[in-house]
Amino acid sequence: MGVVIPFDGQVESDGRPQPSLDPLVRLTSQDMTLINDLILEKAQSHVELIPQLAGHLINSGGKRIRPMLTVAAARMCGYSGLHHVKLAMSVEFMHTATLLHDDVVDESDMRRGKEAARIIWGNQASVLVGDYLLGQAFKMMVETGSLECLRILSEAACVIAEGEVLQLAVSQDTATTEDSYLKVVVSKTAALFSAAARVGAVISNRPRKEQEALEAYGRNLGIAFQLIDDALDYAGSRAAMGKSVGDDFRERKITLPVILAFRRGSEPERKFWKRTLEEGSQANDDLIYAQKLLERHGSIAETMNRARHYGQLSKDALAIFADNDWKAALLEAVDFCVSRTH
Amino acid sequence: MGVVIPFDGQVESDGRPQPSLDPLVRLTSQDMTLINDLILEKAQSHVELIPQLAGHLINSGGKRIRPMLTVAAARMCGYSGLHHVKLAMSVEFMHTATLLHDDVVDESDMRRGKEAARIIWGNQASVLVGDYLLGQAFKMMVETGSLECLRILSEAACVIAEGEVLQLAVSQDTATTEDSYLKVVVSKTAALFSAAARVGAVISNRPRKEQEALEAYGRNLGIAFQLIDDALDYAGSRAAMGKSVGDDFRERKITLPVILAFRRGSEPERKFWKRTLEEGSQANDDLIYAQKLLERHGSIAETMNRARHYGQLSKDALAIFADNDWKAALLEAVDFCVSRTH
Repeated sequence: MGVVIPFDGQVESDGRPQPSLDPLVRLTSQDMTLINDLILEKAQSHVELIPQLAGHLINSGGKRIRPMLTVAAARMCGYSGLHHVKLAMSVEFMHTATLLHDDVVDESDMRRGKEAARIIWGNQASVLVGDYLLGQAFKMMVETGSLECLRILSEAACVIAEGEVLQLAVSQDTATTEDSYLKVVVSKTAALFSAAARVGAVISNRPRKEQEALEAYGRNLGIAFQLIDDALDYAGSRAAMGKSVGDDFRERKITLPVILAFRRGSEPERKFWKRTLEEGSQANDDLIYAQKLLERHGSIAETMNRARHYGQLSKDALAIFADNDWKAALLEAVDFCVSRTH
Repeated sequence: MGVVIPFDGQVESDGRPQPSLDPLVRLTSQDMTLINDLILEKAQSHVELIPQLAGHLINSGGKRIRPMLTVAAARMCGYSGLHHVKLAMSVEFMHTATLLHDDVVDESDMRRGKEAARIIWGNQASVLVGDYLLGQAFKMMVETGSLECLRILSEAACVIAEGEVLQLAVSQDTATTEDSYLKVVVSKTAALFSAAARVGAVISNRPRKEQEALEAYGRNLGIAFQLIDDALDYAGSRAAMGKSVGDDFRERKITLPVILAFRRGSEPERKFWKRTLEEGSQANDDLIYAQKLLERHGSIAETMNRARHYGQLSKDALAIFADNDWKAALLEAVDFCVSRTH
């Protein structure tokens, strides 16, 4: 054990500074100011309910990691125009639309520590405002004049929806394999991370090799990000997460921690998972028992290990780019994502 | 009164043949075969639920009037390429996505004479498959390489969503004015009709004047179409409509027939509308009484008069085009839409 040196940032127990999103936030801050202004502007409408509902989610303190990826990717590629701002806004609106529709699909009560929009304004408005934001996202992409960016992001929109439908289909099925689970994750989460990073290279007119490298960076980062999310859903604290712990359990989602615990579990334990997740019969203490089973089989730790594996793939994908501050920030963002506790 | 001459088509009581969609259907049939194949192909996915759910709606015998408008507009403009097929498919997918989301928003049980998809597969899948079809629509637009078509159709996507949200906001409010109602109609229905027609001129590289003429044609046709829809919702028969009569009443939508009857009604009648539509307290015979009130104040006939007015605007907009079979079919389609009984 190294000596813990207290300083401005957090430190890990071995004395190395905790990886942070700060360098990425700092480098992108000027661009992100433009993007945040554009987000507020494009969430406007003469129909008052739209900015009200959209603003509720937009102002709820998401990390905006996806648009930061677009900005950093473009800047790392030497881009000096302004279209990356429009692309980044489009990416964030696609994400916001997905969240609004997800909350309806999952019947969630909370989002980012606040009441979900659907609880305040209803499912109907959440579906329609999501559609509106998606339309605005495409309008903004058109303004960049890049058909290739439009192709990549419209393809991502399809893949994300496919992933969500697939998740519906495998949900409540404890026989879900790790492969099926990964397919869901690659589609519903990694597709937007990879598109967000890739369009940064495309708008910079960089060669296909660099586009694909950023695509791989984003894809693997997205997988890692989602695996950590799924682990934290059982292991995090409500205050840090900004959403309820155990949401996935209550919504009967089959995520990797459960898949591993189910496979490694005894027959009575499997019966427990079947009762709670397949049949949906959940008693008060079941979440605590579920957490105990995940602990017993090391499922959370193993899920985080898998996340670190994809994090490493993500970082390796950037090897072809010359070292600079942007690249360093993108690399540290990966470390942050796999070590985050919220 | 003229003599009624029985012949192959329907005849009006004055002896003129009933306007028909047949000429438009006949002229576009070759293109529509390609479009229908493309629709089936692009509704596919390795996630089985997607083609199942999408196919349920796609194969339920909609008239496909919107993609026919795109085809006929392009052909009237002398287009000889194949991109109009892709645009027409995109238009139909945007429409299908809207229907899927609408059924969730309206909590409808029936659509085109069949159980609504949301009843069979649930709201969740309907939302997500709608998102998938919207993504596929944009992918297909990108394939045409026309940024202007992408601009027009993504703008339409925003306006449609805005119209739907506005409808939510004014629904259940008997104080809704005819102006507010028209705003909803222009957005939620006419926006896609106008975009569908306009992109036909855009893909044919026709001058702005012709694009705008087709835009006006589609917009006014869309308004007329929706007004007739709203009239038929109270006046049609279930068998002919393929959906339940009185849906709007049950969903407490304020449409033009009601706005007119409310304004022309006595105080007790207004209390009836407030109880049934604002407060949502509806008894068994209330729909029949509502229909009687609409009859008493001539609201259905007046709504159809308004529709004919917009139909005339729609036809006049095509004056700048040279006469040919395509134009004739587009003109007759307007007459069909304002005289239809289903």
